[in-house]
Amino acid sequence: MNINELQVGVIGGTGEEGRGLALRWAMAGARVRIGSRTAERAQAAAAELNPFVVNNPIGHGENREVVAEADFALLTVPFEHAAATLEALVPDLRPGAIVIDITVPVSFEKGVGVRYAAPPEGSASEHLRARLPENVPLVAAFKTEPAHLLVDPHEKLDCDVLVAGGDKEARARVIEAIRFIEGLRPVDAGPLASARAIERMTVLAIGINRRYKIKSACYRVMGL
Amino acid sequence: MNINELQVGVIGGTGEEGRGLALRWAMAGARVRIGSRTAERAQAAAAELNPFVVNNPIGHGENREVVAEADFALLTVPFEHAAATLEALVPDLRPGAIVIDITVPVSFEKGVGVRYAAPPEGSASEHLRARLPENVPLVAAFKTEPAHLLVDPHEKLDCDVLVAGGDKEARARVIEAIRFIEGLRPVDAGPLASARAIERMTVLAIGINRRYKIKSACYRVMGL
Repeated sequence: MNINELQVGVIGGTGEEGRGLALRWAMAGARVRIGSRTAERAQAAAAELNPFVVNNPIGHGENREVVAEADFALLTVPFEHAAATLEALVPDLRPGAIVIDITVPVSFEKGVGVRYAAPPEGSASEHLRARLPENVPLVAAFKTEPAHLLVDPHEKLDCDVLVAGGDKEARARVIEAIRFIEGLRPVDAGPLASARAIERMTVLAIGINRRYKIKSACYRVMGL
Repeated sequence: MNINELQVGVIGGTGEEGRGLALRWAMAGARVRIGSRTAERAQAAAAELNPFVVNNPIGHGENREVVAEADFALLTVPFEHAAATLEALVPDLRPGAIVIDITVPVSFEKGVGVRYAAPPEGSASEHLRARLPENVPLVAAFKTEPAHLLVDPHEKLDCDVLVAGGDKEARARVIEAIRFIEGLRPVDAGPLASARAIERMTVLAIGINRRYKIKSACYRVMGL
């Protein structure tokens, strides 16, 4: 894989997760475009990040524009908007594009804090998978990476990225591309149903952050 | 906590998990007894481990005998026998004892491998919690530690132990006691419902072992 030729389109890329992943993949050399419902917001997000990008500056556009040329369409909107956003963009996806889902469905409960809100399909990734045409591969990744770390170019990363998906070839391509990001190690987490574990690990990390008064809990698989 | 005074009773302690945890806590200095349905099998397991234990040699007995004097009653039978085993031992538990649940419910599916078999309560720990008197605290721990690593005294451990439970004081005692085991770091995983994430992490690790042809995948929480 030539990372300089990889096109990444970040759907809803003006949020912290979206900007963070846009930054990290752009720092790794990929061609990244931030998408938004309004092109101006995408432009502002890209302008904020580009001082830290050496090679290909981050581009911008409306969501449908950035997915039209993307090898990876990175879905970074909050889970509650993910299905509708994705379904609306299906006609615009470049043939052969891989959808990367980073969403985690959570609910807030008074006194308890953040809770995992399991979709009926078992996980957010399976919920979204059920709403995509069969020939569009969907891969779960980056679900356990802390957004505020990703978005800060001065933060050194030291986390594993658990990568799951039913299409082995698509999963392998995402794994290969993540290897170019400094400080992140992709781990093959197998079938998409692994997202049931991975999404809950995110909520577990949020609880650990709260109990230990830290902000950046993430995971490493040991023994690998 | 004086680790030399901590009494640990290992229910069904002749299996790999049970022997492994008996060994590691005995190496840490605790007073450990291995329990079994038949005292002879418990004796054989203790005899096999004791060459590696410096301080208090590991004792043995029937399950009901070892829980009668245990501060920690460690439930290490396979999940399918856990509820019945535990319920039968409730009258024998020493007052104030903490039950530590390490079980993970799995099923094998042809072509798919190991799958998580979620109990109706959401996790094995919650399933067992519902079958215990309210005044007996139950803490989930050691669910993600590879048994074959624990049981080999020559293996250096390097894993986090995710510890969950509704009784904060009991959880804190278990966390404190785990600190004495070399190579294991306890992490406060909060309420018992966190077992839903933790048990699935075990199944995820089994899949990672299979895909990477390794045997010892476990987890570390980074940023802590």
